[in-house]
Parts: sequence; C-alpha cells; structure tokens
Amino acid sequence: MIEKFRQFAKVPPKGWNSWDGYGASVREDEVKRNADYMSQHLKQFGWQYITVDIQWYEPSADSSKYHDFAPLVMDDYSRLLPDPKRFPSATNGSGFKPLADYVHHLGLKFGIHIMRGIPRQAVHKASPIKGTDKTARDIALNNICPWNSDMYGVNVDMPEGQGYYDSLMALYASWGVDFIKCDDIANSVIYNGTHKKEVEALRKAIDKTGRDMVLSLSPGPAPVENGAFFQHTANMWRITDDFWDEWSLLLNMFDRAEKWSSMSRPGNWPDCDMLPLGHIGIRSVDGPGGNRQTRFTKAEQKTMMTLWSLMQSPLIMGGELPDLDDWTSRLLTNRELLKMDDRITEKYQIYRDKKMIIWYAASSDSEYHAIFNVSDDELTLTGSQISSFDLPLKGYNVWLDQDVTLSTKQTIQIGSHDVYLIKTSIN
Amino acid sequence: MIEKFRQFAKVPPKGWNSWDGYGASVREDEVKRNADYMSQHLKQFGWQYITVDIQWYEPSADSSKYHDFAPLVMDDYSRLLPDPKRFPSATNGSGFKPLADYVHHLGLKFGIHIMRGIPRQAVHKASPIKGTDKTARDIALNNICPWNSDMYGVNVDMPEGQGYYDSLMALYASWGVDFIKCDDIANSVIYNGTHKKEVEALRKAIDKTGRDMVLSLSPGPAPVENGAFFQHTANMWRITDDFWDEWSLLLNMFDRAEKWSSMSRPGNWPDCDMLPLGHIGIRSVDGPGGNRQTRFTKAEQKTMMTLWSLMQSPLIMGGELPDLDDWTSRLLTNRELLKMDDRITEKYQIYRDKKMIIWYAASSDSEYHAIFNVSDDELTLTGSQISSFDLPLKGYNVWLDQDVTLSTKQTIQIGSHDVYLIKTSIN
Amino acid sequence: MIEKFRQFAKVPPKGWNSWDGYGASVREDEVKRNADYMSQHLKQFGWQYITVDIQWYEPSADSSKYHDFAPLVMDDYSRLLPDPKRFPSATNGSGFKPLADYVHHLGLKFGIHIMRGIPRQAVHKASPIKGTDKTARDIALNNICPWNSDMYGVNVDMPEGQGYYDSLMALYASWGVDFIKCDDIANSVIYNGTHKKEVEALRKAIDKTGRDMVLSLSPGPAPVENGAFFQHTANMWRITDDFWDEWSLLLNMFDRAEKWSSMSRPGNWPDCDMLPLGHIGIRSVDGPGGNRQTRFTKAEQKTMMTLWSLMQSPLIMGGELPDLDDWTSRLLTNRELLKMDDRITEKYQIYRDKKMIIWYAASSDSEYHAIFNVSDDELTLTGSQISSFDLPLKGYNVWLDQDVTLSTKQTIQIGSHDVYLIKTSIN
Amino acid sequence: MIEKFRQFAKVPPKGWNSWDGYGASVREDEVKRNADYMSQHLKQFGWQYITVDIQWYEPSADSSKYHDFAPLVMDDYSRLLPDPKRFPSATNGSGFKPLADYVHHLGLKFGIHIMRGIPRQAVHKASPIKGTDKTARDIALNNICPWNSDMYGVNVDMPEGQGYYDSLMALYASWGVDFIKCDDIANSVIYNGTHKKEVEALRKAIDKTGRDMVLSLSPGPAPVENGAFFQHTANMWRITDDFWDEWSLLLNMFDRAEKWSSMSRPGNWPDCDMLPLGHIGIRSVDGPGGNRQTRFTKAEQKTMMTLWSLMQSPLIMGGELPDLDDWTSRLLTNRELLKMDDRITEKYQIYRDKKMIIWYAASSDSEYHAIFNVSDDELTLTGSQISSFDLPLKGYNVWLDQDVTLSTKQTIQIGSHDVYLIKTSIN
Repeated sequence: MIEKFRQFAKVPPKGWNSWDGYGASVREDEVKRNADYMSQHLKQFGWQYITVDIQWYEPSADSSKYHDFAPLVMDDYSRLLPDPKRFPSATNGSGFKPLADYVHHLGLKFGIHIMRGIPRQAVHKASPIKGTDKTARDIALNNICPWNSDMYGVNVDMPEGQGYYDSLMALYASWGVDFIKCDDIANSVIYNGTHKKEVEALRKAIDKTGRDMVLSLSPGPAPVENGAFFQHTANMWRITDDFWDEWSLLLNMFDRAEKWSSMSRPGNWPDCDMLPLGHIGIRSVDGPGGNRQTRFTKAEQKTMMTLWSLMQSPLIMGGELPDLDDWTSRLLTNRELLKMDDRITEKYQIYRDKKMIIWYAASSDSEYHAIFNVSDDELTLTGSQISSFDLPLKGYNVWLDQDVTLSTKQTIQIGSHDVYLIKTSIN
Repeated sequence: MIEKFRQFAKVPPKGWNSWDGYGASVREDEVKRNADYMSQHLKQFGWQYITVDIQWYEPSADSSKYHDFAPLVMDDYSRLLPDPKRFPSATNGSGFKPLADYVHHLGLKFGIHIMRGIPRQAVHKASPIKGTDKTARDIALNNICPWNSDMYGVNVDMPEGQGYYDSLMALYASWGVDFIKCDDIANSVIYNGTHKKEVEALRKAIDKTGRDMVLSLSPGPAPVENGAFFQHTANMWRITDDFWDEWSLLLNMFDRAEKWSSMSRPGNWPDCDMLPLGHIGIRSVDGPGGNRQTRFTKAEQKTMMTLWSLMQSPLIMGGELPDLDDWTSRLLTNRELLKMDDRITEKYQIYRDKKMIIWYAASSDSEYHAIFNVSDDELTLTGSQISSFDLPLKGYNVWLDQDVTLSTKQTIQIGSHDVYLIKTSIN
Repeated sequence: MIEKFRQFAKVPPKGWNSWDGYGASVREDEVKRNADYMSQHLKQFGWQYITVDIQWYEPSADSSKYHDFAPLVMDDYSRLLPDPKRFPSATNGSGFKPLADYVHHLGLKFGIHIMRGIPRQAVHKASPIKGTDKTARDIALNNICPWNSDMYGVNVDMPEGQGYYDSLMALYASWGVDFIKCDDIANSVIYNGTHKKEVEALRKAIDKTGRDMVLSLSPGPAPVENGAFFQHTANMWRITDDFWDEWSLLLNMFDRAEKWSSMSRPGNWPDCDMLPLGHIGIRSVDGPGGNRQTRFTKAEQKTMMTLWSLMQSPLIMGGELPDLDDWTSRLLTNRELLKMDDRITEKYQIYRDKKMIIWYAASSDSEYHAIFNVSDDELTLTGSQISSFDLPLKGYNVWLDQDVTLSTKQTIQIGSHDVYLIKTSIN
Repeated sequence: MIEKFRQFAKVPPKGWNSWDGYGASVREDEVKRNADYMSQHLKQFGWQYITVDIQWYEPSADSSKYHDFAPLVMDDYSRLLPDPKRFPSATNGSGFKPLADYVHHLGLKFGIHIMRGIPRQAVHKASPIKGTDKTARDIALNNICPWNSDMYGVNVDMPEGQGYYDSLMALYASWGVDFIKCDDIANSVIYNGTHKKEVEALRKAIDKTGRDMVLSLSPGPAPVENGAFFQHTANMWRITDDFWDEWSLLLNMFDRAEKWSSMSRPGNWPDCDMLPLGHIGIRSVDGPGGNRQTRFTKAEQKTMMTLWSLMQSPLIMGGELPDLDDWTSRLLTNRELLKMDDRITEKYQIYRDKKMIIWYAASSDSEYHAIFNVSDDELTLTGSQISSFDLPLKGYNVWLDQDVTLSTKQTIQIGSHDVYLIKTSIN
C-alpha cells in the first residue's frame, strides 16, 4: 500500500526558489514577480512551486551571508514569522497567508524553507510551546547547525518536542503552505549524517495536518545508506552539497546520480538541487561569481538538463524568471525533457571512462540513451563504436529535435561537456 | 526493458551450500547426499540450488582454515579444476560436469564458488591464457584477497584479461553450472570497496556463454552506495560479513536489512547470507563453536526466518540436510514464509527502539507486520499499544498458524529474541 | 631557550580536583576541607593544587549532569563569576579571591576550570567586552561544546576576541588563580580535533598577565599529531577521554601512554587524568557506580600509580581527601613513586603481548623496569624469562619495599592486573 | 641509558641515493661515479652515505616502473642478490661486498634498499630458510606491498621468521653494508599503518650482527602516533610520501615538519625525503617531468634546504653528483646550514597564516628564525612587524651571508616561495 504522502509528489516537483538569486534576503515583491512570470509562461509546462528560501524571519538579512545571532521575528509560541518589513502582507501576525493566497490565485503552489529545530532566542528566553506547559528551554537539545546560528535541535522523544513540530506544521498548513524545504536535517557535517528523529517528527507533524505539503530535505549530500529511510519519510532529498554554475560540480553530480538512480520512484525523488540558469546572484553571494548570467556554457546547460531529467530530479529554477532569455526559456519548456522527468521508470549509468559517460533510461513506451562528453575536447564516435555500447543507430535526437539514422561507418561529434541524447520507441 | 540476467532469479534463490558444514573441504559424496535429500524433501517447496563452496581445487583442504600458498589443481590455461581425490568424478579433466549432471538428474541446479582473479601459481609460472598469446603473468594485477592466498586480481582493461574471465565462464557453462558465487569481489577490506571492473567483466563473460547462470557476489558487507551498480550486474550480493549462529550477528542484520530494503526486486536480491541451522560445523572451524547443532534458540530461528523472508533474502541452508530434525524441517518448509520470500513487493522498517523493531511488508494481496523483541526480556504489549504503531488487531498469526483478534486492552507476550508476525489481506 | 611558561610546571603538577567527587556541584566548604587535609597530610610530599572544576557559576548545579541552558552568574563584561550561594565568600563581586587567599594561606595553590569560549547568554544579550567597543555577539562564533551548553567559541582573529581572553585571564590573575584547566579545547568530537586558535589566544592572554598560571587542556584524547603544538602552548593536556575506576579504561591507558611517552618533558606533561581513588561519586553521577569507594582492586591501583608515575603524568587526586584510608594514603605518599614522577627523563614500552606489558624508564641515577600483568590470570615468570627481556634479576622491588635477587630458575608471580616494579642504580 | 643503535646516527645522515636519477635501474658504474664525486667534493662537508635504491636484484629493471612478477636473482636461502649484469662485481655470489669495499676505500659508507618481507618466488617454490628446517612457504604471510610485487610479509612470531631476517642482516653485514633503507614498512596504505612487528624483527636482527648499520624506514607518511615506537626501533623514518620537485609537495612538508618537530633527537631523525636537486629523472619516470634539471626555483631550493636543516632531516641528495652546477654545489656545502642540521636541539613553528610561516630553532650557542613566504607574491615586512613576532632585528642573514640590522621602520622583501633566515648568538 503506497504511503499517502508519496501521492503529494507523483512526479518530480518543478518550481522556482529564491536562493540562487537572493540568498537569505528575498522580498515579497520579488517573490510575486517571479510567481507572475511562472503563471503566465511556465505553468502550462508543469511548473508550479514558488518557494521562499531561508531566513524570511530575519529583518537584517541582505545577502546569502548570515548575521550570526541576529534577533528574529517570532510569535508567542517560539515559532518564527515573516519579517513584515520584507513581507508587508505579513503584518498583524498574518504570516505567509496573504502571500500564499496570492500564489494560489495564480494557479500555483507556495513553499517555504525552514531550519531544523527551535529558535535559540526562544530557548534562552524560555518562551512557551503551544499546547504544552513546557518552554523552549525544556525541549531544546544542545546541538546546532554548523553554518547558521538561528536554531537548536529539538528533543522529539518528549511529547512536547513532537508537539512543537506539530504546532509549526499546523501554523504553516493554516497559511496554505504546499511545500516545506527543511534544512540542516538531511546531512550534518558535524553530527555525521541525517537527523533521523527530527525527520520522523516532521513526517508525523505534516501527516497530522491533513494538508498535502511536499517535504523536501536539505542539505546534501544525503547519505546513500539512508535511502530507504528517506523513501518512507520524505518526498525529495538533496544528493549533493549546494550546486552552482561550475563544471566540477556538474561533473561530480554524475557520481551521485549513479549511486541514487535506483532509489527514486513516484513520491520519492533524490534531488540534484536547483538549476543555476539565467540571471542569478542578484543578492546571493554564495557560489562563484556575483550578479551574473549563469557561467555554464550552452553545452553544459544541455548536459545538466539531460542528467536532471534522466534522473527524474525535481526541477527547481534558481534564476530570476522575469529576466529569462529565449535560450533559457526553451531549456525550461522542452516538452521531451519534461516528459522524461515525469515518466521515466528505470534509469542507470551503463558506461563510464575518463572521456565519456553513458546513461540508459526507459519509460513505458520509450527508451533513452545519452552519451555525455565529460572531456575538455570534442569527442568523435563512429556508428560502430556507438553500437558496441548497445546504443541504437536510429532514433529521435532530442536536442536536434529530429530523427536520425547512422551507419556503422558514419561518425558523430559531441562537443566538450555536451551530450548526445537519442530516444527510441518500445513497441 | 528488464535486463536479461535478472530473469535468471525471478525469486530469491533457495538452496544448500557446503561452507557452514565443511568449510573448504567438502567431498563429492557429501555433496551428493545433501542433493539427494533436497530432491526428496525440499524440492517441492522451491529449494533447488546445490553449491560447492570454496577451494574444491585444493587437495589438502581439510577444514575452513586455508593452507596458504598450497599448490592447486589447474588446467593448461590457468583455470582451476576440482581435485579428483575429493571429487572422484572429476578425473580425466571432466571437471564438475559429472557432478552437475548428477544434480540435474535430481531435478536440481548446480552451483560453484570461485575466487576473483587468476591463480598466483599460474602467474609465477607464466601459464597460458586460452585463446590469447598472453600469459597469466601478463594479465595479473598486484592485488590480492586479504584472507586467502590463491589468486591475484586480473587486469580486465586488457582484452586478454576479459578473455580469461570469458574462458572461465565458458568452461563452467560447459560443465553445466547454474550458479556462480564469486568471492573477494563485493567488498574488500584492504581495497575499500567493490572490485567493480571485475564484476563487470564477470557479467559480460556470463552473458557471452548464453547459459542462465545466477551470479552471487561475496563477501559482505557490500557497500550500500554501490546498490545501483549491483542491480545492473548481479543477481544477489552479500550485505554482511559472514553470518553465524550468534545473536549479535542476527541483531546486526536488522541494520543492514533496513538500509538495503528498497534495493531488492526481481532478479536483484540483497543477500543476508546462509542459514546456520541444524547440524553445522562438521569440519568448518569458522564461526563460533565446533561440530554442533545451531546455537540459535528457537525464538532466534523464527526471528531469522522472518527477517530473511521479509527482506526476500536468498535462502541458502548451511546445515547438513540429511541430519535435519523435525523443527528445522518445518522452518524450511513453512509455506507462508516461502511465499513471503517470493511474493513480497515492498518492505521496510517502521519503528525501532532499544527493545523492539517493527517491519512492514506487502505483496499484491497481503500485508505483513512483524514485531521483533530484540531485548533480553519478555515484551508485553497491549492491543492499544499495537494499534498506536498502525498495526492490525485482527489477522493471521503466521507462527501460531491461526487467526487472531485482539481487543485494545488485551495483551500479547513476545519472548526474548522472538517475533510476532501478523498477515492481513488487502481487499 | 626554554619557553617561560614551561617553568610554571617543572615537575608534573600534583593536586586535588572536585570533579570525581562532586561533578559540577562542589561548594566552598567542601573545597576548603579538602584543602585543609592536603595542607596537613600531603603538602610535604609535593601535593599542592586545589582545583574547583566545572560550572562554579551555575546556581542550580547539583551533580555531574548539566542543566542545559540554565542562567549563569556573570559580571558586566561577559565573564562568569562564582555563584555566591555555593561560594559565600564570592559575594559582592569578589570572585574567587577570598577562596584563593584561603588556599594560599595553607601553603597551597588554587586552580579553576573554565570552558572554552564566551557565555551564550552574553551573546544573545549582546553584553559588553571589557576594554573594547564590541559586544559578545560581535566576537562569538557559531560553534559549541557538544556536551555542555554554556558557551560559544570566540573569534580570536579579531583583536576584541583576543581582548576577551585577555580580560578573563587578567580577572583570574587578580583573584590569585595558579592553575587554569580549560575544557572543550584539547579535542572536540564534532570539530575533529584541537581548537588551536583559542589555545594560542589563551597562551598569549596568560603570558600577558605576568602571573605563573599553569595551563591544563581538556578533554582528551588530545590528538597525538598536535603534540608539538601542545608543547609550545600548554603545561599539560589530557591524553584520554574521562578516566574512571574501570579496568578497560586503565588497560586502554597503556596504548595512549605508549604513543605519548616521548612527548613529555619539564613544563610539558601529557596527562593521564585524575586518580579515581578512595571515596568518589559523592554527587558526581558521571562514570560507573554511585557514591562509592573506588572500584579498582588494590592490584589495579598499584598498576595505575605505577603507570602514571612512569609516564610522569600529573597526579590529580579525585577522591575526597578527608575520607582517605590508610592504604590510599600510602599510595599517594609513596616517596619512590613520587620521585619517579618528578625525576624520570626517559620512558617507553619495551614489550607487549596479550598477557603482559613491559615498560622501561630512567632518571639521572636510576633505571626502572615494570612488568604489568594485564591478563585475568596470575602470571608466573622465571628469572630466565625475565632476563630474556633485558630486565635485571637484582634490584629494589618498589612495591615490596625491599631488595630482591632472583636466580634464573626462580619464579615470580604477578597477580591479575598487578605490577612488578624493579629499580636499579645507574653507576 | 641511550639505546646503542641511536649512536649509529648521532647527526642526521647525509648522502646520495640512486632513486631520483635512476629509479629501479641503477648500475654499478653509475654508483661508483657518484661515490667518486662525493669522496672528492662533498666528503669534507659531512656527506658520506652512498645508497643503491630498490630492485638491484631485478635483471630487467630499466626505470622506476616495476615489471610485476619478474624473476629475481636469489641465493639458495631465499635471499635476494644483486644482478651480476647490472653489478658486474657481484658475480660468483660475492653480493655487494666488492662494491661496498670500493665505497669504503673512498672513505664513504655504503647503503642498500630492501623491501619488507620474503620473495614471492621463494614462497611459491618453497625455498629453504638458512639455519632452519622451514621453507619460505612456511614463514610467509599473505600480505603484500601495494605498489611492488616482489615480496610477501614474514611471520616473525615464528622463530624461523625472525631467523629469516637474522640471516638477511647477517649477509648484509658480511658485505659491509652501513645503511639499510627498508621500504613498505613505515606506512602501508592498504594495511593502515606501520608493520610494527617486522620493524621490531629488523631491529633485533641488526642488533645481533654487531655491525653499525643505520636503519631507515620508508615509505611515508609514517603515522605520527607511532613516533615513540620509531624512536626505539629506527634511526630515521619518512614523514611524507615520495617527495619531488613540485611546490605543492614542499608546501605540504611544513605541515608534516610541524607535527614531527618535537620527535627528533640524536639517533632518531624524522626524514623529509631526498633532495630532488640538480640533474634528476635520468631514468626515473616517477615524479613530474622526465630527464631534467630540478624544476624548483632557486627560492624554493633555499626554502627546502632551510626547512630540512631546521628540521634536522637527513640530507640525501637525489641528483646526479658529477653533473652538479655551482649553485647546487654551494647549496649542498653551505656550512651554516649543515651546522644547523647537525647541532640544533630544539625547533618549532611559531606562526602560520596563508602567506607566511615562521620557525624558530636553537642550538647550544645560536638561535635561528626563519620567515618563509609561502604566497605567490613578494612579501614586504617592516622591522616593527618582524619584532611583533619576537624576531630579532639584528643578526646574521644566513642566505645573504652578512650581518644585518633593521630599524623598526625599515622593510625587507621576501620573494615568492623564498625564505629570510636570521641567526643570533646566545650569550
């Protein structure tokens, strides 16, 4: 019997997230204009989530660099609230309800980022926990996120600890949140792995709300040996550390994708992280470069989109949507790739050497073969070499958008960091 | 499209292996009498493989302790042959063909153990490789098994290295072998992981023979992060180090089973290792104790059989079949458990604390819930506690072989190391 | 040129510490009565340090179990002060000055325990840092001790971060502190190693005071590869995790002692941790057992004292001094062992097997050989076996307090966990 | 009492080794011409060891690349002998005696490289062990060197295993060998650390010969936590993996040197490895580049010589001596540096940031301060900055060979990768 929460994400979620553009500092108007664009141009292709990333409760946030120990906006029950200066509609304790409503009216879904745990300021003040007679001090654990100073962990072995997560998810459900990206939980460098107990507490807390909220876990790399655990608790989980527009990180994703390829299935999607495409780094100073167009070459962008789609990764656009150029728009609206992402049922690496990597995938009616040139030089292959890897010589070349037939003596060229992707029908 | 080799093992293989009884020293008559027994008493329940474990080529083998650097029986092409003193039918270079024929006539299948690599004695003598102009010295690599001194690794990047494995598998196919258990390959303590290249070479070599030979990889623990790799190269792989009749090892299997539970599917079976049941240690001095009846309590035996079946582990009996007592016979022929092992489609751990572990599994028409008492004391649970874990109060108690109904106030007792296993129908 | 701070501890410090008896909860009267006893009975043997261990600033401390996030007594400059309820003489901001004076009047020296870093409560309140225009929030780092929730790390790359440590050491010097035991600094499980920058900041801060304050670093195991670093920054550092009255921990000390044996020298003493002898666990619930006499057998106590003395470990008594019995008193006042601890110049392990461990040491005029029986059975050795390890047959048996001569055929017996210690003169 | 073997190397050994020039392939004439040069030009500065590196027993050796499983020249007792084609004087079983005599007549000392263990060819042939009734097969262990296929480990818990090492050292002593460089013993990547038992067996075997043979252990990095062990068994041991003319390796040596700085003392010398200076890579294909002049800049060469001398590393020249140019000659014969190497008694790093590293050292009459510029840019320091690190403003600038005085406002420039080394007198 399939677990209910897996039905919240029957296909890999597709959407936009504020991190690559704004770091911790995004404002309401910026969120809205990206939602507007998605509604008009991308919604019909399956894109639907608009997610506000980290620290919407931090009044002084101005980039992706955190201000350690800064005071946060919080309600009376140790729960963080959107800063009304950055999110004007959040005044009078209305939280993200108005913004979620706005996004819903556009026919889209609304997501937020949260950090594992309870605000440290609540712990040191001994603030109340809703529905219990305990305070934040009573349920906090002396463990932290190594890269952000907002929270302490929560002792969910105490009913009041579970109660805290219940009260959080109830609040978010009441706002109309559709997507929870919980951070500092899938992998911790200092505590060696996944905070499993708090993942389980989140799972229970979401189930109790009765609302279909997708659960996404960060940061990566999530430990592969917890794959079965994630399948039964979350909808998606990050398989690498933060991904940016740098070839070495893209190359590294092939390793991670290979290891995780057999662990994805409807409702459970190992996540290759956001797509740093188009205009990024507007106020985010994370990653390489500043305010910029993506540093990926077109070949690399094709490689990225092919690998993400073969792997059925969630597709979460990081770049500013209103600034999309034609090339990037077409990347995000390529129907064949989006179909792969949704409908593939089996995928795996079939060959790898220092120059090229070959993947195979299949859906109910099609097979896909991709040859990635991971070398710094152009790669030339004869039809007969291609056959020797059990690849078809005849099929639909996805990136050329045309049917092709190759003889054994003909050759193809694949540019450096580019990809050759062939689709064939299963009859 | 499902890979062809996965069809060799649509359900988890079930059989007998000589290691737990005889170590490296089993003889032909001993193999035959176990095959005879299986054919008469177990075959109709799905048991079919008879496997000769390690060092059938070592004339002086007399237990599970290896004689380092002992001379081995070998053909002219650097391939090991059964020692004719231990296997009289193997005289005149007929190899295991006569014994395989014998097993086949009983309606069973025949398996052998091999070590990764090429005999060191062939390398130091520069013996020929069939079908090539290279010698064993040319294709050997300076890497070894840390616990057995028979072989060196093979450089399969050379065509002649692949050729050596091809010649091996061709020979075994010609003997009528149905099952290859290759050792020192799934995990190496000194080389940190799986010898992937040689696994791939084996896969190719078997595919070339055209014979349906199941490929089983040892030793464990196979690295979880190679799960996808194993799915595309082998039929089964060991998930722990050698398993023996010791509670700590059985308890440890729960960890490993949890991690691997989502990686098994028809044709790909993570392997919990042999069942050290009944009369074992006849000449094997590996593991605890000597020539003995299994040291597992009956409760522990039930726990083991339940976990192996839930996990859809291959079931490979280690004890001497002709010496089976009634209790052990019934364990091996419990139709409900064997059905679970064959027909489950999803399984996972749903709860764990220091005292108990709860698993869930489902087949197309049934659901299974098991509560394992891993503590040293009897465990008492009320119906209402059982319900709180989403377990049914009404169902078929597999080990009691009767339908049961529990009220919320009634209690059940589960003995130390015992299991409570309930089946319900999916309507 | 020998570094000045090394002259603060020309021989391994000897003293008493409150942890083994009182955990985090010791009170002024308890400290005084131990000081009184030391002054009357142990001072003449070289014992001189009286150290108040962790959390003298925590009003609710009542055992060795910490109350996470409890409010602490603090001055206006983010510096912790003794709780006046527990230390009545500390009223009116006089800190430990009165208690230090008391100890000094007894002819002894006074030590305190501190935690690396700055109080979290100061950080969340943004309290001032003396002599700077920065607050605790400005200089704190988002890193913590994994087992105690009092402090955050300090950014000593900022002058104000160094300034904080300077202000701390100036305060302690003004109190008359002679010994600083800084914790959460020599080894961190979550940050993998030594907090080197803060060790260096402490070294500088102490040097600036001009007062001879011994610097002792905890917890262990300090990483061996930082041995040279410790030699140039500290007087002593813990080589194991907390030590208690348990044979497995004592056995383990032999490993650590072997590795560190060449790194000690005047002013630099690898520290085997406190001696859990006599009456311990009065309110400490750390370690095994409760309020108790040491669980070490007499043989084990002799082994411990021998190893600590051979290794020239600091000797810090953990048990309640006024409750000393005769046997334990004699252990602590054995002049030969105390002389070894002070005067040895070279020491190392010369042999080890599963049953016994042999050490050699030398001072300017004597050599020492110790045979430790680490097995669970009595050990019998002939004179000729003893000779085969280059041990003398004639010498002064330290524990028997008599000269002995052995023929090659005579035997000695060493009880389980006991030691045979022979001294010979270098002529 | 100082151990006798430590007197074999009261100062760090200085000499020449064939590896950097010839890999495994050096020939007798090449050894002799380097010995001749040393005798004439370097001997008076303290250089004295001439060492034949690995595989002098391998007839087909032609570079630093090994021919796996090649047959070796061996005597009747499983002991390897110099190949008479490469070493003509070694005919008729005279071994290295004639070459050692030649070197001795030049007033120099003779060294050889050996691999831990016993030849695999002896094991597979079951060759005799001198003075015992066991064969190589009986005493061999199934463990290997991961990068060379010549040997198996030896079971020295058997008297015949110790006997094998005894017979080896007796043979080498009879040849007149003065220096044994044993490889695959100080650190093994596959067996995680030092082969301690075989180190101890070597120590005993050398002691039994009565000959002053220096014992040098390879490869590195020797584990720091075995420092005390090495002090009591060997004269020198490698603290890094193979060192070549590459800045990253030189930079890395500062880390290793810092960790080992307190573990060296007369007779025990942590070894920074050979000096890849002048003409190297003649037939060695190890390391970067081919037949070449060292790729180190002059600044880097000064940095290397300064660090090695401060650390009192053995100084073993790797380049071809007869091809020495003036610059390199002067490097090797700088009397101040050689004096530092011999006479320093204390040394350690006192400061490090990303741009510079500062070391301090002292001998009985002098102090040394070195500022290394490890950045890629020139470094400018004022006198007052220099003072702030407690460095003297007045002293003897070793590399300029002149006395210097600096005011606090004056500046010095240190080129990229260069060093500023000042000596002052202790009065």
